[in-house]
Amino acid sequence: MTNLTNRRITLAARPVGAPKDSDFKLIEEPVAEVGPNQVLLRTVYLSLDPYMRGRMNAVASYAPYVEIGETMVGGAVSTVVASNHSDYKPGDLVFGYTGWQKYALADGSNLRVIDSTAAPISTALGVLGMPGLTAYVGLLDIGQPVAGETVVVSAASGAVGAVVGQIAKIKGCRVVGVAGAEEKCRYVVDTLGFDACVSHRSENLVEELAEACPDGVDVYFENVGGVVFQAVLGHLNADARIPVCGLVSHYNDTDRPPGPDSMPRFARTILTKRLKVQGFIIFYHANREAAFREDMTAWLDDGKVRYREDIVEGIEQAVGAFQGLLEGRNFGKLLVQVSEDPTRGR
Amino acid sequence: MTNLTNRRITLAARPVGAPKDSDFKLIEEPVAEVGPNQVLLRTVYLSLDPYMRGRMNAVASYAPYVEIGETMVGGAVSTVVASNHSDYKPGDLVFGYTGWQKYALADGSNLRVIDSTAAPISTALGVLGMPGLTAYVGLLDIGQPVAGETVVVSAASGAVGAVVGQIAKIKGCRVVGVAGAEEKCRYVVDTLGFDACVSHRSENLVEELAEACPDGVDVYFENVGGVVFQAVLGHLNADARIPVCGLVSHYNDTDRPPGPDSMPRFARTILTKRLKVQGFIIFYHANREAAFREDMTAWLDDGKVRYREDIVEGIEQAVGAFQGLLEGRNFGKLLVQVSEDPTRGR
Repeated sequence: MTNLTNRRITLAARPVGAPKDSDFKLIEEPVAEVGPNQVLLRTVYLSLDPYMRGRMNAVASYAPYVEIGETMVGGAVSTVVASNHSDYKPGDLVFGYTGWQKYALADGSNLRVIDSTAAPISTALGVLGMPGLTAYVGLLDIGQPVAGETVVVSAASGAVGAVVGQIAKIKGCRVVGVAGAEEKCRYVVDTLGFDACVSHRSENLVEELAEACPDGVDVYFENVGGVVFQAVLGHLNADARIPVCGLVSHYNDTDRPPGPDSMPRFARTILTKRLKVQGFIIFYHANREAAFREDMTAWLDDGKVRYREDIVEGIEQAVGAFQGLLEGRNFGKLLVQVSEDPTRGR
Repeated sequence: MTNLTNRRITLAARPVGAPKDSDFKLIEEPVAEVGPNQVLLRTVYLSLDPYMRGRMNAVASYAPYVEIGETMVGGAVSTVVASNHSDYKPGDLVFGYTGWQKYALADGSNLRVIDSTAAPISTALGVLGMPGLTAYVGLLDIGQPVAGETVVVSAASGAVGAVVGQIAKIKGCRVVGVAGAEEKCRYVVDTLGFDACVSHRSENLVEELAEACPDGVDVYFENVGGVVFQAVLGHLNADARIPVCGLVSHYNDTDRPPGPDSMPRFARTILTKRLKVQGFIIFYHANREAAFREDMTAWLDDGKVRYREDIVEGIEQAVGAFQGLLEGRNFGKLLVQVSEDPTRGR
């Protein structure tokens, strides 16, 4: 035992629909001794991402689900507190999937040291991390936008959507965002440089989308599903591409929604418009990481990609923040600051 | 005026749901004189294909729809009766989209002379024609099957499905057909060499499909939509490909079907299984015609691809035959023999 106290959040019950507070449990316990080849980490920033909702269900997916009583999964940037591993020394800042907790013992095999001089370390969880790579691969490799085409992205102010839209602008496209709150819409246009943004809360979403996309839609980057998807469907051009990255509007679904069945309309549109609809999971695209990192670093340096973070303080805030994420209450990349950022004020 | 009498079938009304007899009109009229650069054709075989249902609706699609009072569109093999065009001489056999009629005056620009010594001329409407090319492009270019994978094809005994399955066998795949009637299922297994076939009329379609696909489904070639698609969906492997070629079960839909809404389940499967779902329209793949023709001719010569034709006699049978096509009553490539085949008995 060390004299440190860990605080970790476990999955206490499988959520039915929206995750409730009682589906999680905050556990305090002493941190165990650092074993051979182990590294003791103190979490600085924990990333909260929509995919975590899927890991709470006992359904076979692309990754194992979280067992009841286990610490919730999640990527984090941490400081090495103690190390019995030759690759890491105390003070190193590392990225790893160390979960919703303050301290983690890791075996070192799945950690990556972060260069804290290149960019703020929190970006390893955002624009320079998994969400940024997701945007890059989904838009460029699957969406394949061509200059002059129109790209629509849902959850436009989110960690992925904001990057998608900015890369599409770099590639010379007309970019239209879909977001909820008015301030998010203003942000993606005024700060991120999208050409337009419409609110999925509008009763005239279909018409507003048509107005924002006078030449139709060539790429729809799907983050949400539901009404936004249905609204975009009617505006798709022939040969449009739909990278399916997320479906956050459905993650809390418990039953199949009531009718009418919109599937035949979708199938007909796939056929008559020759759509390419392709799902992707970023964990299978690690081979694109080097190219992504090079491009994104340059874009950040040139000010061509901007980002916004929504940081809550303290591991005990993770559950509430995650609940808000599924409802679109965050504004920018959602992070939990679990301990002091040693690079701040440097 | 010639002293010949044309018989042509026009669209008299836009069908609501399944096309009724009264949606068509059989017109008899004298054949006009052959003008400069024109060719007079007598239809030997008219092809009936599911896509024609779409052309009856006043809905913008990949091709113009048929106006009320116009002759129904369709591909046909015809004999040149008279010609004022230097490329064609009486007795030539040609393919063209000359429609549901006995005689057609064509300007020669969209005709193709058929080599009647290479294969029966009716195959220009089937295995060596548009349905064959559709199978070839959809399976190989979009489905991209790999030896050892499992390919499922719906409407398995139809003009496209039968070719899809046989090409997939040539490529070393396990091939499972879905058809309606028991004799169609027997045919695709016993004559075409599919590994298995299940009936979409079975109450245990999902279970029977699972049994026929012990390693899951890697390519689903979609011709029908509806219940077959829903049944296949649960058996798809990660990275499965779905070329969407047709949706014949939906062509007569008038309203959106009742709920539940199956769209979210489909979207979730696209995401978690990383599906690629891609619609295609064969008219945009003419660049593949040479390769197709070379391969298919060799496969036919080697006996690796077989085909079956369902031929009705007389242009006045076209409406009834087409109605049957949408209900799966045909067995093999549906053709209307409009006049004597001059190559028969040679």
